[in-house]
Amino acid sequence: MFVLGIDPGLSTLGYGILEARGHSIGAVVAGTIRTQPGTDVGRRLAELYRDLNELIAEYRPDAAAVEQVFVNRNLQTATAVGRASGVVLLALAEARVPVAEYSPSAVKRALTGYGNADKQQMKKVVAMRLGLTELPSPADAADALAIALCHLQGAAMRRAVEGAS
Amino acid sequence: MFVLGIDPGLSTLGYGILEARGHSIGAVVAGTIRTQPGTDVGRRLAELYRDLNELIAEYRPDAAAVEQVFVNRNLQTATAVGRASGVVLLALAEARVPVAEYSPSAVKRALTGYGNADKQQMKKVVAMRLGLTELPSPADAADALAIALCHLQGAAMRRAVEGAS
Repeated sequence: MFVLGIDPGLSTLGYGILEARGHSIGAVVAGTIRTQPGTDVGRRLAELYRDLNELIAEYRPDAAAVEQVFVNRNLQTATAVGRASGVVLLALAEARVPVAEYSPSAVKRALTGYGNADKQQMKKVVAMRLGLTELPSPADAADALAIALCHLQGAAMRRAVEGAS
Repeated sequence: MFVLGIDPGLSTLGYGILEARGHSIGAVVAGTIRTQPGTDVGRRLAELYRDLNELIAEYRPDAAAVEQVFVNRNLQTATAVGRASGVVLLALAEARVPVAEYSPSAVKRALTGYGNADKQQMKKVVAMRLGLTELPSPADAADALAIALCHLQGAAMRRAVEGAS
């Protein structure tokens, strides 16, 4: 099972794909899609859409986990992230990839048991869980891996609960 | 010259197309695109995208004017409008339609000289300027016509200023 994690953004969108085989989880790919600040917003969204469609076509994820727009950011950032997330959800819906959304604190809580874990702690947990020899980077790609991991962990727990009942 | 005005929204998106010929401006079409609240957001964005693409293909607007996300709405509405506006800007960019964005108060000021004009006043001005025998409705379509009118008025002023200089 391939899970695509996405940390949406207009200037930098982080993505990470995990593969789950039985109890083992491995990182397949992680990176960022960047668009040029100060240029036309529509063209930047079109670039994002094209690159996302290529990513989805290449890896054909079975599920996607997307970080929810963070409510406390400033309004301009919130608008840009909202627009980028609209294009993300569009591309995933068109490819019929089921989507789950998680807040940043839900991702932190799921991976560290603590909703206010800092970025360094999160990177360490992600590296440990995925057996990476280095801390994941850049930050947005690391966040995307964490979101995908949060989704897989929740899916495993739901299966365990269903199996036990 | 055809101008497409859009009042973006996820539940209801208002659109209106105006045609300018010399000094006369006429309404070509106005209406709404609606998606079902409570259903999957990605599918709703995909419906919006498909209907917008059909609208753009049918009328081939020379320019588009889009209402900016209104900052004082509640966060859930702002996120939904942000996502819808992302899909709107994507569709317009892909069709290479130049886009201008206007805040609600800029539209009101342009049409009535008063940034806090109420909806009824706005409808009356739009009806008068477009020679409509009835007030435009529904509200989102009327807003979209107002945004397109604001854009055409600004374009006419810019031409006049350039002609005079």
